[in-house]
Amino acid sequence: MRYSLLAGGKRVRPVLCLAACEMVGGDQSLALPMACATEMVHTMSLIHDDLPCMDDDDLRRGLPTSHKKYGEDTAILAGDALLSLSFEHVATRTPSSVSPDRVVRAIAELGSAVGSAGLVAGQIVDIASEGDVDVTLEKTARLLEAAVVCGAILGGADDESVEKVRRYALRVGLLFQVVDDILDVTRSSEELGKTAGKDLASDKATYPKLLGLDGARRFAAELVGQACEELAGFDPVKAAPLYHFANYIATRQN
Amino acid sequence: MRYSLLAGGKRVRPVLCLAACEMVGGDQSLALPMACATEMVHTMSLIHDDLPCMDDDDLRRGLPTSHKKYGEDTAILAGDALLSLSFEHVATRTPSSVSPDRVVRAIAELGSAVGSAGLVAGQIVDIASEGDVDVTLEKTARLLEAAVVCGAILGGADDESVEKVRRYALRVGLLFQVVDDILDVTRSSEELGKTAGKDLASDKATYPKLLGLDGARRFAAELVGQACEELAGFDPVKAAPLYHFANYIATRQN
Repeated sequence: MRYSLLAGGKRVRPVLCLAACEMVGGDQSLALPMACATEMVHTMSLIHDDLPCMDDDDLRRGLPTSHKKYGEDTAILAGDALLSLSFEHVATRTPSSVSPDRVVRAIAELGSAVGSAGLVAGQIVDIASEGDVDVTLEKTARLLEAAVVCGAILGGADDESVEKVRRYALRVGLLFQVVDDILDVTRSSEELGKTAGKDLASDKATYPKLLGLDGARRFAAELVGQACEELAGFDPVKAAPLYHFANYIATRQN
Repeated sequence: MRYSLLAGGKRVRPVLCLAACEMVGGDQSLALPMACATEMVHTMSLIHDDLPCMDDDDLRRGLPTSHKKYGEDTAILAGDALLSLSFEHVATRTPSSVSPDRVVRAIAELGSAVGSAGLVAGQIVDIASEGDVDVTLEKTARLLEAAVVCGAILGGADDESVEKVRRYALRVGLLFQVVDDILDVTRSSEELGKTAGKDLASDKATYPKLLGLDGARRFAAELVGQACEELAGFDPVKAAPLYHFANYIATRQN
């Protein structure tokens, strides 16, 4: 569990969870257990997706994958324990100043991001399509949404603010997909760190194919605008991290 | 998920969860989502334990195991989704008449029964000992304890009653182990439905070896008495299911 959880990574979900909590006026300590939980869930999904019977990956973040290091049995169980711990951690470690009904709502949100309508659904589609469909981005978007929404719930946001934050996350998730499609067309494999142009060669419906390259770029710009609009009602200093994250996603080069 | 969850079984954990809820004065509807959750967790642990890299079982309850029917990848994901759904189900479906802090406590209890100090810990020991140690009973006991304790919490029990119910479950869990050891000595394989006498042939420390057969029987009788004593303060009619369950475990012949 430690080996995979502490192997590094950008900690995008935890950071956004804490940022959302602070934006709605909460102290980040209120969402810290949930922030950790989103990273546990993310790590669990990587461990299980890397297994021989799934994507069969030997390396993850430059290290042997969990099953390469500890065997398949232990890797599966490490994932199970991380998933269970994510819920337990939120239930036992969230500060008592957060009202329990918010903790329950956040747990429900986290659960729906994982289960048969969330990460697991994505991996099932991945398997069923034999790699024809890349659902990694969809899976990324679903857990990212949960992280941001849970941060807002635990930070004490009213229902309207929670929905604003959710719409922000949905825009950013879609933006991520659009930018990924654009980069696949415009960047070389070397710059991208993965095989470029593979979308073009496949039957996959991409935004540049649907809207043209300029159209896709305009759509991306629209999405950043819409995402940031959702942040307009909050303290601009506290909204800055989420504001800049949207812009970072829009302008990333790999 | 449906294939394994609805394949039958005795539903011991759900039944005890509901019984504990009613014993402490709650309507069983208060604990019904948690009762279902304990069965989801139990089913998930069976699916993952049956995998080729674990116990490699082809049959479960007379049917092909999940991975035999759907492949290893889908079996792993079905387990993941059931585990996640168990927490989500409790968080979203527990009636609003249960105070949210009780829901949070029950979720924490369920989590601790699964994770690295619960079912997963048991399976890790099982793997590490290469079958030398049979931890199935220990795993059974841990989830049974959580089911009963969660039932009491959701039924509105005060702290003292919750601890009584927990002590009841711990006695019954130990009783189950002691009776299993006794049956291994006294019954033929045919009556038992599994290989009898294998404990005697192995180095395993059993209660008949430690206490003698009569001593083990006296200890079992003591445990039933202690378990039922914990129920003494409750309405006898409502305590009857848990009372009879302890006696059933003590007198079972296979």
